[in-house]
Amino acid sequence: MQKIFSRATLDRIPLYYRALKVLNDSGEKIISSSKLAKILEITPEQIRKDFSDFGQFGIKGVGYNVDKLKRGIEKILGLQYKWKMAIVGVGHLGTALANDKIFPLQGFQVSALFDIDENLIGKKINGVKVYDFAKLDAVIRRKIIDIGIITVPDTQAQIVADALIGAGVKGIWNFAPTKISVPPEIHLVNEDLFIGLTTLSHHLANE
Amino acid sequence: MQKIFSRATLDRIPLYYRALKVLNDSGEKIISSSKLAKILEITPEQIRKDFSDFGQFGIKGVGYNVDKLKRGIEKILGLQYKWKMAIVGVGHLGTALANDKIFPLQGFQVSALFDIDENLIGKKINGVKVYDFAKLDAVIRRKIIDIGIITVPDTQAQIVADALIGAGVKGIWNFAPTKISVPPEIHLVNEDLFIGLTTLSHHLANE
Repeated sequence: MQKIFSRATLDRIPLYYRALKVLNDSGEKIISSSKLAKILEITPEQIRKDFSDFGQFGIKGVGYNVDKLKRGIEKILGLQYKWKMAIVGVGHLGTALANDKIFPLQGFQVSALFDIDENLIGKKINGVKVYDFAKLDAVIRRKIIDIGIITVPDTQAQIVADALIGAGVKGIWNFAPTKISVPPEIHLVNEDLFIGLTTLSHHLANE
Repeated sequence: MQKIFSRATLDRIPLYYRALKVLNDSGEKIISSSKLAKILEITPEQIRKDFSDFGQFGIKGVGYNVDKLKRGIEKILGLQYKWKMAIVGVGHLGTALANDKIFPLQGFQVSALFDIDENLIGKKINGVKVYDFAKLDAVIRRKIIDIGIITVPDTQAQIVADALIGAGVKGIWNFAPTKISVPPEIHLVNEDLFIGLTTLSHHLANE
């Protein structure tokens, strides 16, 4: 049981992780907070505070051990485990996520796809079978899926969430642009693309 | 020229906007910060501080004028304008974004699609034509596109960004999982799906 970090900190951790992975792969042993600050455009003070919160301490005037830091961050992100995911809704977005090259490299395995479209059921996408949504409960239980990904129209999102939770998933990643309700023990992350877009329009309109 | 808000504040503004739109559409005239706090699961103090930063002031013991607040937030997000967007890379993700129902309702119009695949060039997706990537500069200039959306593989992302910037776009929304470089006057928003996923795995691994 480790510390649970805020969303703001969690937004930075994958950036640290990616940079450390590149440095480690290219044989770098030591990295200073000021060098990392330049790479990531985050202040060195913020980086040192974050790393200290992660229980990682550098050597003054030298820096941090890249490999040790990377392994510490992997543990915080739960990347030492394999996570099994199911995608419900095999439209363009669901298909794009099923074909993602990065997720499996990081231990996130898409293990089942679900749809109600008879033309899709039984097909395979990136080697993963599309099951009838009616069989969701049995398939999720048999494959012991951890994370359910919702890529259905917003009118169907709550029904899908309820089915996933009933079948035992522990986390939900929701791409439908609607608010869904889940019990407190279920972790829900809403992926809201409108936020990225309005961040752009805010800057374009006001500068 | 208005105030430029931080990303953390900008993550909340679309949530405010959506809630106020629903309230306004259902005929609500006045909303209190405490009622909005319950709907959005944000503290009333944070809401009052944000609204005051937006130059919006409620009446003590009564609340905020829903319509006025909504219009103020629309202006902050630049939603009073129409934004023209081009998507480069008509794979599953590009196609999903081209088919998005929410963007056009909020003033974000996909006006052109680009790809290098001859089987796609000349086709229409959701009424929008796929152009040859070789014609990007001319098409972007003629249509006066504001925002370029990058949905190509990461090895191609910088080339696409350079082409978009050369053609005059002012903002870039990058979905390729790589860091791209842009001049300071260009607004870049990286949409990093790995962040949402590791937010989930962090919670699942540590509770």
